[in-house]
Amino acid sequence: MAFHDHLRLAWRQSNSMLCVGLDPDPARLPPAVHGSLFEFCRTIVDATADLVCAFKPQVAYFAAAGAEADLERLCHHIRDHHPGVLLVLDAKRGDLGSTAEHYAREAFDRYAAHAVTVNPYLGGDSVAPFLQHPHGGAFVLCRTSNPGSGDFQSLVADGRPLYQHVASRVADEWQAIGDCGLVVGATYPAELATVRALAGDLPLLVPGIGAQGGDIAATVANGRDSSGYGMVVNSSRAILYASSDADFAEAARIEAQRTRDALRAR
Amino acid sequence: MAFHDHLRLAWRQSNSMLCVGLDPDPARLPPAVHGSLFEFCRTIVDATADLVCAFKPQVAYFAAAGAEADLERLCHHIRDHHPGVLLVLDAKRGDLGSTAEHYAREAFDRYAAHAVTVNPYLGGDSVAPFLQHPHGGAFVLCRTSNPGSGDFQSLVADGRPLYQHVASRVADEWQAIGDCGLVVGATYPAELATVRALAGDLPLLVPGIGAQGGDIAATVANGRDSSGYGMVVNSSRAILYASSDADFAEAARIEAQRTRDALRAR
Repeated sequence: MAFHDHLRLAWRQSNSMLCVGLDPDPARLPPAVHGSLFEFCRTIVDATADLVCAFKPQVAYFAAAGAEADLERLCHHIRDHHPGVLLVLDAKRGDLGSTAEHYAREAFDRYAAHAVTVNPYLGGDSVAPFLQHPHGGAFVLCRTSNPGSGDFQSLVADGRPLYQHVASRVADEWQAIGDCGLVVGATYPAELATVRALAGDLPLLVPGIGAQGGDIAATVANGRDSSGYGMVVNSSRAILYASSDADFAEAARIEAQRTRDALRAR
Repeated sequence: MAFHDHLRLAWRQSNSMLCVGLDPDPARLPPAVHGSLFEFCRTIVDATADLVCAFKPQVAYFAAAGAEADLERLCHHIRDHHPGVLLVLDAKRGDLGSTAEHYAREAFDRYAAHAVTVNPYLGGDSVAPFLQHPHGGAFVLCRTSNPGSGDFQSLVADGRPLYQHVASRVADEWQAIGDCGLVVGATYPAELATVRALAGDLPLLVPGIGAQGGDIAATVANGRDSSGYGMVVNSSRAILYASSDADFAEAARIEAQRTRDALRAR
């Protein structure tokens, strides 16, 4: 099933726009998981799967720890045990076409992701291999949630900032190659509304609530699509590290439930 | 030793601006290496090390094959057996600060790279963790060699294209945090001259000669710095796959020698 179709089903089945980001920091794991990135993430996944539309493993945490085998097990666990949930690989890939084909194989064949985050800086031919892959889809970075995002994303060309050029290009051209979404941080709610206007009903992956402090009500008001869903709203640390004790799974579930409900109150 | 100091020594010791890109495509390996990405790359490295200033392993090929262990062995082989050669990890990372710290650990601690390629789209705080790492350095994507590079890199803001904003920002601000270079494709020799003028003596990583067809004479004329070096000029496929038979190492050496000499004829 194509990425957009899968996501629409996930929204309806879960009645949730929450995505739990799986960013397992070895320095913050509860003692109960004995240092295993897989066991930590699997426990969080099983405790929250009915509350979410998506899980988003962050490759960097596994790569720094040399734990690609844990990431493989985790991704296949999600696909096997929670098949209705969207699996987004947060890899922020961006490379020349022939190289990007290898990253597409990594994301969709090795890790069985439904969609992968990609960087637009190298242009259309760097993203096409992800969209052309038979099971592929991509969330393209548009307006990110970090302080330095304005360094280049806010530069104005032809009367509008770079991130709006990215949004239009993705909606008007790249979506014709394969299913796309856009990454827009919740830390900029006004810009979320602008991107929604440019992007039609393309799904938006929205990081920046929870530990990063984005405003949930403004995010929902500005980012939803014509169906009332339209967003994959990510929270990572606030859920993963809700407790550092033996009750970390229950605490994660409570925090996930709270965030899901806040995203529903619209 | 800091990245720039190491590179200056590598240029002088080798009297070469050639970088061999290590992009081991499983579909193109000679039978003699029995499918081992490590054995293939190690053989190429040992056959060409005295002809180059740098080696540049491309992470995508190892990631698609699930061969991170081969990449670790290869990087440590280069550091142990060819300590004068610069090791550039071609990873094109770009992520939020706290995540980028994990990618910096991956590049510099796990893979022992001297420098890593990074994407500027997320801004200064996404690149700082690479520059702040005690052994760190980064080549920032500026003007890439692919056909789609103009989609956003050529958009004009404040009278000049985005890639020139990137070049100035890196030279004027990011270099103050830690040693930087810029990635500029050989397929755009005129723009290479413009970037050289903006970047002072920052090193330029220049892909796009060899299989991608960039003009070597124009590249050297436009890209060298005041010392006569200044560039890390990458060739991958033309060297790696100079022969697909048992003589692949000898053929790679001949092609590397030819390219090194062409880069010297200035």
